[in-house]
Amino acid sequence: MILKSQVEWALHCCAILAGLPDGRYLSTKALAELHGLPKEYLSKALQSLSQAGLVHTTLGPSGGYRLARAPAELTFLDVVEAVEGSGRTFVCQNIRANNPCRPKDYCESGSCAIARIMWEADEAWRTALRKVTFADLGKTLEQEIDPGIWAGTFDWVLKRAG
Amino acid sequence: MILKSQVEWALHCCAILAGLPDGRYLSTKALAELHGLPKEYLSKALQSLSQAGLVHTTLGPSGGYRLARAPAELTFLDVVEAVEGSGRTFVCQNIRANNPCRPKDYCESGSCAIARIMWEADEAWRTALRKVTFADLGKTLEQEIDPGIWAGTFDWVLKRAG
Ligand code: FES
Ligand code: FES
Repeated sequence: MILKSQVEWALHCCAILAGLPDGRYLSTKALAELHGLPKEYLSKALQSLSQAGLVHTTLGPSGGYRLARAPAELTFLDVVEAVEGSGRTFVCQNIRANNPCRPKDYCESGSCAIARIMWEADEAWRTALRKVTFADLGKTLEQEIDPGIWAGTFDWVLKRAG
Repeated sequence: MILKSQVEWALHCCAILAGLPDGRYLSTKALAELHGLPKEYLSKALQSLSQAGLVHTTLGPSGGYRLARAPAELTFLDVVEAVEGSGRTFVCQNIRANNPCRPKDYCESGSCAIARIMWEADEAWRTALRKVTFADLGKTLEQEIDPGIWAGTFDWVLKRAG
């Protein structure tokens, strides 16, 4: 079970968009160049973010993407679910109902204990992702990334932002 | 990101094997019948358990599978990893290195903060799965499953166990 590469791309794009000044937009072309990604594939990931309502889009020569909410309101889970969907990672096909020792038409009163344990683990994963916002991430990146590269990157971005 | 159906199958098979008396084996055929699964596909899932060292196999007419360790020593994570592999669910392709604003040959001192957050969530998922053993599961199932069906199932199983 491996997440799509687009998850890494979408998270990095949101980290950049979270640093844009209000009202500015960044194009797919600039985001693709900055991350060394093929524009066509990246635009699919950005469309997923747009469909989930996490980014706003404008058209035209200075158009592009900006976050639809404050970085403190955008979590890792939002972005992961925009790309991967919000369905549970464990799907129970109710195989217990095939047990030949059950009376015909026997009906379960609750979900299978095995499924519940798998769903609790899924929820632990989502809880961890829900706890981290792009405001938290911004602070961490600012501390960890070489200050020259950090400032240079935002200069580069602002030159290209609509 | 969805786990394979074989995860559900393997977990249910281990739940049954955990209830077998010491030294008894259950065939792929009986496990397939009990869960209403195609024998050929189920045998692949059982082979994954065997390759991971979670079950022992004997050949011959009364052959089959038994757990390789006590149910209290076998966790959900063991079984999930036997089927899905133990690799992380998030793979970082280090796209940050493509940033055109970096000096050439610049070398990162640590992992990317985005990857670390994703890996922590992965670890939260694994920790939840590592906490539940098949001894815990057996107790829960015994409480939740209709006593007639529970006893009937183990009668059925013991008639077929080698
Ligand atoms: S019947 Fe689906 S996990 Fe038990
Ligand atoms: S470079 Fe891979 S997650 Fe940041």
